[in-house]
Amino acid sequence: MLLIKNIGMLATAKGNEPLRGAAQHNGVTIMRDCAVLLNDETIQAVYENGSAPECGNVIDAGGALVTAGLVDAHTHLIFGGWRQHEVPLKLRGAGYLEILKAGGGILNTLTATRNASEDELYDRAKKALDEMLDHGITAVEAKSGYGLDVENELKQLRVIRRLKEEGGFNVIPTFMAAHAVPPEFKGDPDGYIEFICTKILPKVADDELCEFVDVFCETGVFDVEQSRKMLTYAQVYGFKTKIHADEIDAIGGSVLAGEIGATSAEHLIAVDDAGISSMAKGGTIACLLPGTSLYLNKEFAPARKFIEAGVPVAICTDFNPGSCPSDDLQLCMNLGYLKYRMTPEEVLSAVTINAACAVGRGDILGTVEPGKQADLVIWDAEDLDYLVYRMGTNKAKKVIMKGNIVK
Amino acid sequence: MLLIKNIGMLATAKGNEPLRGAAQHNGVTIMRDCAVLLNDETIQAVYENGSAPECGNVIDAGGALVTAGLVDAHTHLIFGGWRQHEVPLKLRGAGYLEILKAGGGILNTLTATRNASEDELYDRAKKALDEMLDHGITAVEAKSGYGLDVENELKQLRVIRRLKEEGGFNVIPTFMAAHAVPPEFKGDPDGYIEFICTKILPKVADDELCEFVDVFCETGVFDVEQSRKMLTYAQVYGFKTKIHADEIDAIGGSVLAGEIGATSAEHLIAVDDAGISSMAKGGTIACLLPGTSLYLNKEFAPARKFIEAGVPVAICTDFNPGSCPSDDLQLCMNLGYLKYRMTPEEVLSAVTINAACAVGRGDILGTVEPGKQADLVIWDAEDLDYLVYRMGTNKAKKVIMKGNIVK
Repeated sequence: MLLIKNIGMLATAKGNEPLRGAAQHNGVTIMRDCAVLLNDETIQAVYENGSAPECGNVIDAGGALVTAGLVDAHTHLIFGGWRQHEVPLKLRGAGYLEILKAGGGILNTLTATRNASEDELYDRAKKALDEMLDHGITAVEAKSGYGLDVENELKQLRVIRRLKEEGGFNVIPTFMAAHAVPPEFKGDPDGYIEFICTKILPKVADDELCEFVDVFCETGVFDVEQSRKMLTYAQVYGFKTKIHADEIDAIGGSVLAGEIGATSAEHLIAVDDAGISSMAKGGTIACLLPGTSLYLNKEFAPARKFIEAGVPVAICTDFNPGSCPSDDLQLCMNLGYLKYRMTPEEVLSAVTINAACAVGRGDILGTVEPGKQADLVIWDAEDLDYLVYRMGTNKAKKVIMKGNIVK
Repeated sequence: MLLIKNIGMLATAKGNEPLRGAAQHNGVTIMRDCAVLLNDETIQAVYENGSAPECGNVIDAGGALVTAGLVDAHTHLIFGGWRQHEVPLKLRGAGYLEILKAGGGILNTLTATRNASEDELYDRAKKALDEMLDHGITAVEAKSGYGLDVENELKQLRVIRRLKEEGGFNVIPTFMAAHAVPPEFKGDPDGYIEFICTKILPKVADDELCEFVDVFCETGVFDVEQSRKMLTYAQVYGFKTKIHADEIDAIGGSVLAGEIGATSAEHLIAVDDAGISSMAKGGTIACLLPGTSLYLNKEFAPARKFIEAGVPVAICTDFNPGSCPSDDLQLCMNLGYLKYRMTPEEVLSAVTINAACAVGRGDILGTVEPGKQADLVIWDAEDLDYLVYRMGTNKAKKVIMKGNIVK
């Protein structure tokens, strides 16, 4: 047993379901003078208003804010090589195609990832996960999608499994071979989708290497029908689904998300009313990625519209070596306040319970309640407002994952 | 003697003067396979291309990037109290005046700073400086300007002196009683400027409590003639000058900066051609504050225009509890690339030699050369491009200040 006492403020949602509409704010409870009792990997009890049992094993939170561990529900964690050499090209105004011709862009990451050994990819991802833990992120979704062939997609997914089994991280695997059309299928997205569905997906299923399947539904990548085929196959195999939708154009990805009951849709900068309405009906969570908007000088997704329409909003990093080389979810929380105009309570829901539900873990993660996994952060902060207000430094003081003090 | 060896890339400007125009990029030298020999507080020698002397006391940089310690040339470091309680007000769309009426805004910080003891202010500022050191910032300018009366302005400046003498930090003091009109002089900015010049400034001079004097030249704060009077007095007393200019309106602050030969002008989001031209003639450095633009959802200052016109650009945090509660200069470097469209070399100049010159320390800080103070950062980075590209995590691996390993 471990008792965290002297918690000045405990801020948490309740229950296992995503918070939507007004509840994304109101569903967050603010408690004072709390203590939390952990029984090994599990939260045993929460005490309010100064009451707390005796316990030999104690952490003193020093009057600080405590929340559930943060969940990052959208990352491209497994990749070989950074892409900082594209900085001078981009500054000269080189477009996407010119960078691609110079060996840059996603093809660069594809090559680097194919060339990297499993151990190399493991070490790189582990370094990022350690850094994320240090920042209070105790669960992370990780996508494949830089292998784009049988061997290398499976290699990425095996790395994710090892991070979980050997590394002890909460990592949730998503299979995303439909991230781009590889050189081997240039000009033939239909052929590539067919290849994924019949040649890669069955092996992924055999080895139980993923929980989610994702597809990049966008002008110039995969259209709505190709995306529908990919995700229908995924559902037949029993996987849950996600869709990269409406990042640049609203070609129907978010509408599809709602229609097929996808767990989440991602990006959504250009989403239209039809997409929002479909997502609301389908119970799809909006995974918004403000770091990418900042990094690419794009608009910010219409977070308030989603909240008004009753679509649960999650905020995630999109960590990847191209469009968002940042795994700093705390900065994304600042942007949730500054750019999405979300309240501190809404932002907290977006990186805890809603993100947990976006990775299928609403039952065990995302809130500080008896029976949930003991993932907690003691913040260098007195209250929740401070967490979204104070920008640019790591505010996580102590981090507990599965009952272990990891920071 | 201490030898830093196995430096994969050493990136540094040369000399004691600010870099301007094309030189802000070209003046940065990239050296490979280097070593740097420190003699106590001073850099003794720099070795290139694998050559290095024997030395008993060695740090192995592991092939990483090394630069001069970063300099933050614009902060409001000394304040009592954060302002996170304004977050809900701001989200409801409350304007500046409404927040002021609710006891918020700068008057809140004024009250908190007046109420805080010298020890309290010292502890708060020290915590921020420790955090900044941890991020590779080895010299910091700090302004007064939340006291706005004799007693409390001197109190702020004494805290800065203690941070230097007791704390061992490189802190450069700026007197900025002309930051706002205090309640005691409501509606009478002329009277308050007269009060500063005749009642506070002489005491500051007597006690040698500052090196720079700054004034907030802006619509609704101090106009050009009031600012000119403030800075003319400052010059008579032998102080160097800075001007908060053209943040919202180009009312002539940047023109004044060049006319009086101010060391730097700050913010400059709304600068016009007359201001740029005057600054170029006067040799005034442009201290740009991208964190504030991000935080306030404002435009970003026209950095490229300054560079084209031959005005040296520095990048600083503007750390303060209202418009930029962030002391993360590394994030500002990312924004220098992403929003100002500056090259990695230009960004490096902006946070080393140009920032050092903006605080009057070009002779001892800002470059890695024999004779300069031994302030260095070993980065968790292979090259300079990575430093501006990788966002949102602390990339400083080891930090050396005045020859001491402080991280």
